[in-house]
Amino acid sequence: MPPVTSRALETDLYQLTMAAGYVHRGMTGLTATCELFVRRLPRTRRYLVAMGLDAAIDWLVDLRFTEEDVAFLRGLPALADAMTPALCDHLLGFRFEGDVWAVEEGTVVFENEPLLRVRAPIVQAQIAETFLLSTINHATMIASKAARVVHAAAPARCVEFGTRRTHPQAAVDAARWSYAAGFAGTSNVEAGRRFGIPVLGTAAHMWTMAHPTEEQAFAHYVETFPTASVLLIDTYDTPRGALRAAQAAGPKLRGVRIDSGDLDALSREVRHILDGNGAPQATIVVSGDLNEHSIAQLRAAGAPIDTFGVGTEVVTSLDAPALSGVYKVVELEDEAGAKRPIAKFSEGKATFPGAHQVQRVVRDGTFVRDVVALIDEVVPVVSGESTEALLGPAVRGGTRARPVAPLATVRERVAAQQRSLAPWLLDLAEVTRSSPRYEVRPSAGVQRLADAVRARHVGG
Amino acid sequence: MPPVTSRALETDLYQLTMAAGYVHRGMTGLTATCELFVRRLPRTRRYLVAMGLDAAIDWLVDLRFTEEDVAFLRGLPALADAMTPALCDHLLGFRFEGDVWAVEEGTVVFENEPLLRVRAPIVQAQIAETFLLSTINHATMIASKAARVVHAAAPARCVEFGTRRTHPQAAVDAARWSYAAGFAGTSNVEAGRRFGIPVLGTAAHMWTMAHPTEEQAFAHYVETFPTASVLLIDTYDTPRGALRAAQAAGPKLRGVRIDSGDLDALSREVRHILDGNGAPQATIVVSGDLNEHSIAQLRAAGAPIDTFGVGTEVVTSLDAPALSGVYKVVELEDEAGAKRPIAKFSEGKATFPGAHQVQRVVRDGTFVRDVVALIDEVVPVVSGESTEALLGPAVRGGTRARPVAPLATVRERVAAQQRSLAPWLLDLAEVTRSSPRYEVRPSAGVQRLADAVRARHVGG
Repeated sequence: MPPVTSRALETDLYQLTMAAGYVHRGMTGLTATCELFVRRLPRTRRYLVAMGLDAAIDWLVDLRFTEEDVAFLRGLPALADAMTPALCDHLLGFRFEGDVWAVEEGTVVFENEPLLRVRAPIVQAQIAETFLLSTINHATMIASKAARVVHAAAPARCVEFGTRRTHPQAAVDAARWSYAAGFAGTSNVEAGRRFGIPVLGTAAHMWTMAHPTEEQAFAHYVETFPTASVLLIDTYDTPRGALRAAQAAGPKLRGVRIDSGDLDALSREVRHILDGNGAPQATIVVSGDLNEHSIAQLRAAGAPIDTFGVGTEVVTSLDAPALSGVYKVVELEDEAGAKRPIAKFSEGKATFPGAHQVQRVVRDGTFVRDVVALIDEVVPVVSGESTEALLGPAVRGGTRARPVAPLATVRERVAAQQRSLAPWLLDLAEVTRSSPRYEVRPSAGVQRLADAVRARHVGG
Repeated sequence: MPPVTSRALETDLYQLTMAAGYVHRGMTGLTATCELFVRRLPRTRRYLVAMGLDAAIDWLVDLRFTEEDVAFLRGLPALADAMTPALCDHLLGFRFEGDVWAVEEGTVVFENEPLLRVRAPIVQAQIAETFLLSTINHATMIASKAARVVHAAAPARCVEFGTRRTHPQAAVDAARWSYAAGFAGTSNVEAGRRFGIPVLGTAAHMWTMAHPTEEQAFAHYVETFPTASVLLIDTYDTPRGALRAAQAAGPKLRGVRIDSGDLDALSREVRHILDGNGAPQATIVVSGDLNEHSIAQLRAAGAPIDTFGVGTEVVTSLDAPALSGVYKVVELEDEAGAKRPIAKFSEGKATFPGAHQVQRVVRDGTFVRDVVALIDEVVPVVSGESTEALLGPAVRGGTRARPVAPLATVRERVAAQQRSLAPWLLDLAEVTRSSPRYEVRPSAGVQRLADAVRARHVGG
């Protein structure tokens, strides 16, 4: 297969058929405002960590259709009728010229509030949809899971080991988003290269099994990595493996990994053996289908574990493997500047009309509730409360209006945001009917606008 | 970020640390045989459809480390000690020179039987692990889910609509694997370009909402796509939308899509409206969080639905979002040709020693049981049964030994394999303790070898 350099076609066909329609109907002068939000939190998430916004925005401002892209589209049966010279020219000249407002990468968000708002000529706003959703849904899903795992493990650290359990390229980004949410590093080497994430690893069973004895396997590994050996000790018998590891490297042993068995009991026994055999500095890494619940249990039991290797659970977000992020038009503006707020009223799929800002109400450093308000609306608060606007300008007229946040900054933000959550939001238990819910409410202005639009639509 | 052309670093660090160890210890003359198998089927799968083998094998035979790759590895703290000139040269000269045996793409497989066997110099066999697992786990997970959905929908067709619910690049491959498993097409345009998959689509709510009335929205869409209009009719009121669609395009209406509401009742009502208003040829597409169970229910009820759009459920394999494929060394051979069978005996993680062939026992065209046998072992069968060997040579001495199967061939194979399954294997219900299980047993030869290795290992 030929190398693919353009990413313009990583989208749903209907974005292009609709773009064709807008061009053919002379509707390209319409300006659309669209908002991306998550409709419902999974029962296993009490909050989300918004992620992938910068990556999605980078894609949008760089989006171009190449001659090859357009040639392919011209040959596509579903589009053939519509690929007139005017449409081909429109696509070849495509540049995103709009504005994007977005929450900062790493912000805690809840359901039914916009993470991102696009205001652009309608073709551009339409074509943006699929990639924005795909990137932000995936990244937010991973980061939200990873943040729970990190919280459960703290102050012990977590390392992402899941590459083999997801698509090879999704794995590189899973490493990125879990690091951004607080993981200490990843085993994925490409993620280290691409994003500067610490790359960490131990040894595998095959190394031990390739040697006649475990002693030889350990001695040879330590010879190759005199100061960086983390030995896998559970191939035959974990306590005996711990003793052999201590004997092989003593004060230079970086650590040991236990990948099976009763991790609580084994980690205590291994700690005792390492301490008593000249390797008190060696850390204990555990792995094997770990998640926030099993980690919290090990922490609560006081198991002397320094590092949790987490794979499958974080790269697939196993208990909530999809996020219901959607992207909806909320306002249309014609060439004369007349604005029309838009809403859907379908049951279970209703949206609020108009362009929005999220005002987060904070009291004593703790998030109290979010109000989805009109852009310039002032949200009333009582004494002791203050508000902070979550959406800020990220792109203006097609050009980035703020720099991409470095991962180190995002990590700090995630940690700070978690410190601003009420303890019940950090609880790892599933949400039930009787669980409290973080309040996200429409403002008075939004409610008035929704009522007006609903009245207009009756009889649609 | 600079464009990344090499995919050699899409792997776990420990593959490279162990490669370093083998090079440093002069162990590169060892030949390892490793097998890839799925340890346990998810409760929601009664069979798997092996997929991604060709893609993984392509990667393996093309695998090279570039100067940039090696320069990055040299700067990596975890590897710095080990990146001697000898290791750098070894990586720069890396070529896969081994053999790969694999089941044909699209073969039905079960737990604890190899899908793929690699026999290669130990460094090569080791470095292959992560990418093989990542690709085959992901592809087999998607194809196994998609095959259930296709079976539930037949003879109605399924189209993959899930791009927005997974990583953008995983989405392109999700389209590929679901098509290979029997879907009729995808909305993902890039998958159409890369793999020649039919690209299909309808319209979105935004198109309708961008027009003052639904009538206008439909008229304008039909004008742009006179012979290819599939109109989305549920924006305001589905039956009224159906009538307007029939009025807008009449005998040229390709179809309508319903994305919300009671799909059984609405599809009947819509069918009636289309038939009575000059559009009997128009097909009905439904979408909205569909899976094999809801589709089977709609089919059983006799809902007149022609096409099911399936997104989230298939691209994430929502009810089984990870597959436990593993890759284990089963035999080591030294430079003198002496072979040592290898096994793990850890509880729940046991493996069979030796290189294996899977003999599938067939009676009257139906798969009866699989026997994991030694390579050249003859498996006894009773009268009326025959055996077929599942693993065939895919790579010999680093060169492809069979062509990559075209997707059309794979689709036919998946359908033929499903026809060879006993009806209870095609049942969509979850596996319970009392469910029958397809039998996968070790052969007499494998059991003897396992006993011998176990005896040797006692006292490990």
